[in-house]
Formats: sequence, C-alpha cells, structure tokens
Amino acid sequence: MSTELEPTHPTRADAVRNVKLVLRYDGANYHGWQRQPGLSTIQTTLEDAFERAAGERCAIHASGRTDAGVHALAQVAHVHTATRVPTDHLAKAMNGWLPPDIVVTDAVDVPVDFHARHHARRKTYVYQLRFGRQRDPHWARTTFTLWHVPDLARMRAAAAMLVGRHDFRSFTTDANADADTVRTLFALRVLRWREGVRVFATGDGFLMHMVRTLTGVLVAAGIGRLTPEGVRELLSVHDRRAAPAALPAHALFLWRVDY
Amino acid sequence: MSTELEPTHPTRADAVRNVKLVLRYDGANYHGWQRQPGLSTIQTTLEDAFERAAGERCAIHASGRTDAGVHALAQVAHVHTATRVPTDHLAKAMNGWLPPDIVVTDAVDVPVDFHARHHARRKTYVYQLRFGRQRDPHWARTTFTLWHVPDLARMRAAAAMLVGRHDFRSFTTDANADADTVRTLFALRVLRWREGVRVFATGDGFLMHMVRTLTGVLVAAGIGRLTPEGVRELLSVHDRRAAPAALPAHALFLWRVDY
Repeated sequence: MSTELEPTHPTRADAVRNVKLVLRYDGANYHGWQRQPGLSTIQTTLEDAFERAAGERCAIHASGRTDAGVHALAQVAHVHTATRVPTDHLAKAMNGWLPPDIVVTDAVDVPVDFHARHHARRKTYVYQLRFGRQRDPHWARTTFTLWHVPDLARMRAAAAMLVGRHDFRSFTTDANADADTVRTLFALRVLRWREGVRVFATGDGFLMHMVRTLTGVLVAAGIGRLTPEGVRELLSVHDRRAAPAALPAHALFLWRVDY
Repeated sequence: MSTELEPTHPTRADAVRNVKLVLRYDGANYHGWQRQPGLSTIQTTLEDAFERAAGERCAIHASGRTDAGVHALAQVAHVHTATRVPTDHLAKAMNGWLPPDIVVTDAVDVPVDFHARHHARRKTYVYQLRFGRQRDPHWARTTFTLWHVPDLARMRAAAAMLVGRHDFRSFTTDANADADTVRTLFALRVLRWREGVRVFATGDGFLMHMVRTLTGVLVAAGIGRLTPEGVRELLSVHDRRAAPAALPAHALFLWRVDY
C-alpha cells in the first residue's frame, strides 16, 4: 500500500552495483565459509575487509559454502553495494585489510542480477592424495596420505560408474528425506600428481561432504575394499551408512566455478 | 687418578652406537633447531621423541642450526646412543611420537666417529621467491613475494661474482672481529620456478643469515639497486651494513647435506 507514496526516482535496489569477487584462500584457520557468531569464518573476514575498504557493511554471497578447513583457488562471490570505490581499487583495498591466508584475486562489475550461487553452471573441486608410509611435513597441511597405494585403474573404473546424473543421497551427510539429492557429475578424474594423485570432480553442484565421500569411495575401490558392483550399489541404496567415510577436509580445494 | 680404579671392560663410550638421522621439517612453528629453555625447538622435539622411542635421553647433533622459521627437506643429524632398539624401528618409533611437521625420513648406523656437522662437506639451501603484485595464500608460508620482477640475467651475473672462496663478513649478522668468515660458495644458481625463481646456494658452510643475505643481494641486483661493481664491493668492504637486509626465514629450506 505504501508503494504509491514512494518517490519515483530509482530506489537503492535499482542503483546498486553488483561486484563479482574471485577469492583464493587457505581454509586451515577458518570455520568454513559461512558467517557464524563468535567464530572466525571466510565470509566474516571478507565482509570485515569489505566494510573497511568500501565504508559499507554488505553481505558477500559465495558460489557455495566451503566446509571448515577446505581451501579455494578460485571461489566466486558477489556483493551488492552502493559504494563509489572503483572496482579495481576495491580488490586492492580489501587485500590491504585481509590476512595472508585470504586474497581477492579479481573484482569485476557484473549485471545486478548476477548471483554467484544460482548462476553457477559447473564447479570443480580437487582432492589431493599422497601415497606412502611416511608423512611429509611440507604437504601435511594440504594432502591426505594413504599408507596403501591404490590401484589407479580400479579407481578410474569406479569413477566412471559415478559420472552422470544420479541421486547421490548415499554420498552426503545432511540430506533430510525431502531434500533433492540428484546431481549431475560431469567428470571425475584421477590424475597422477607428485607422489600420489589428484581427484578432480566437476559437477552442476555438490551436496555436503560429497566430494570427500566420492574420493573415499574411489580409494576404497582402489585398495580392493569395494568392488565395481559395490560402487554401483551405493548409488541405488540411497543410504549414507553404506558409503565409506568422507576423507578429511584439509586436502580439498574448490578449484574453479564456471558460469 | 681414578682411572686406574676403573674396570677394564669396554666403557660406554666404546660400546655406544652412532645413528645418522635424516630429517624433514616445516620450521614455521619452531624457534629454530637449537635447544632453548622454555621454547619449542626442532632439537628438543626430536630429543623428546628419541627418548620415548629409545628409552634414553640423548643429544641429537645436526649438520647446522637452522634459524627460527627455516625449513628442511633433508637435514642430517647424528646421535650417540646405547639403545638396543633396531635402527629401522627407531625411525618409525620416533615418527610415532613426532608432530606432523617433523619427520625422520631415514635412520642408518654409521661409524662411531661420524659427526653430522664436522664431516659435512657441502650444504645446499634453497630460497623460494615469487614475483607479482598479488599474495598467494597457498604459497604465503613457504615463499617470499617480490612486487618488482627482477631481471634474471642480472641476478645470475651477480651470483657469478659471489661464487668462490671469499670472506663473506658483509653477508652475516653475528661475526665478531675474530671469527673466521671465509667460506667457499661452490654454486649459486637462479632457476625459474612457478611464478618466480628458486635460488640454490651450495657451499662448504654458511654463516648466520648468509643465504638470506646472498638472496637479498641477488634481488637488489635484479631490480637494479645494486650494480655488478656494487656486488663485488660488498665482498671487499667486510661490513654487514653495506649489504641489503636478509630476506625473511619462512622461504628458506635446507635442501641437502653431502658428506
């Protein structure tokens, strides 16, 4: 009813800018992406830096919430703001306030309706595995070490079975009965890397703990604890308890987001 | 005088074993190698783990004392011990007690007179430099970022002048007037690496802060702050104040020790 009384000049919602931010972070010291009272999170740290750089408190929305300990090479976020700080200066100014483990690698103006999460078409995560009986202090923070060397052909055979459009309910920890747990996995690749492999997962979206569970399934297949039939069965039983445990967060990176 | 009263069977000094340990560590959380009361150091942490693994408190002697924050890929140490724990079990048992940022990668029996420091013929350190205006959270812990991209040809020309047997007094922070500051630098190489370079320094020994100062000199030459003549002059003035500051410790690794 009050709309008739409102002025006809553009409202703030019309005038607002939308800035897309590309972010890189080491997640080790954070309780994940999402703002949580009293806890240090990536989102809060970024919003604090944005406020100092732009003089305005704004919500920063990411393509998805990375879990505690998970890293990002190119997380994408958007922020609606009325600030007049030029876009290229915004990234520099934010970086001046951010700690060494978070950096804004790019900031660009985007159409006001761009949404980092809704408009993401594909996301790629990578999980870093090392094989060997010995820990490596220089890779302890960013890789997970397997004592048993898995068979790569078996890992890849299992991966091939998981690619496609499936109900991934067995691969997530928080799906309630009503949740839509159908996702399309475009690719699940196992590539040799250093003393181990990197598992690249590309999909239209991922459920909570899904990449870490998928990687755990590939490892179980690679060391003979899961047969190819067992992998296929996981897709059909729709029961989290059937799948191996999710691997630890510290070896997982959000690699890129495509729009 | 009391010696005549001592038994004639082999003394402990004769019976003792000497074990060579190869060590890898992330130095970020330690106050350097050397034991210091009340501080967490690499040496203390290793001696604690050795005591638990071998049931005996022994001094562990390294090829050299790495500074606070400096890392090692293959530090070498020796330990004289009377323990009967088999050598290959010793490394495993120590690793069971060590934190994730220190690991014993090898343990071998060596002649009782082997001395990790006295018998080291060559040591190689590597300093990791990144070029660019932007920090990278994933390399912040182990590289030093230069905003100015140095000229590699100039860095290499400066390096060529420093190789050889010289009095490196200008390149160390703690030499008193009587100290012998002559060292032989066998090689000083600047190799492209990722978004920057790695500087490899191989010598018969290094003075305190010497590698970090040498790298600082190469950088100053590479960005035009030091001429080739200026580099030569640094060797002849024998004055620490003449040289650029040592670069930070966190990007320096003890790479290998040769005997």
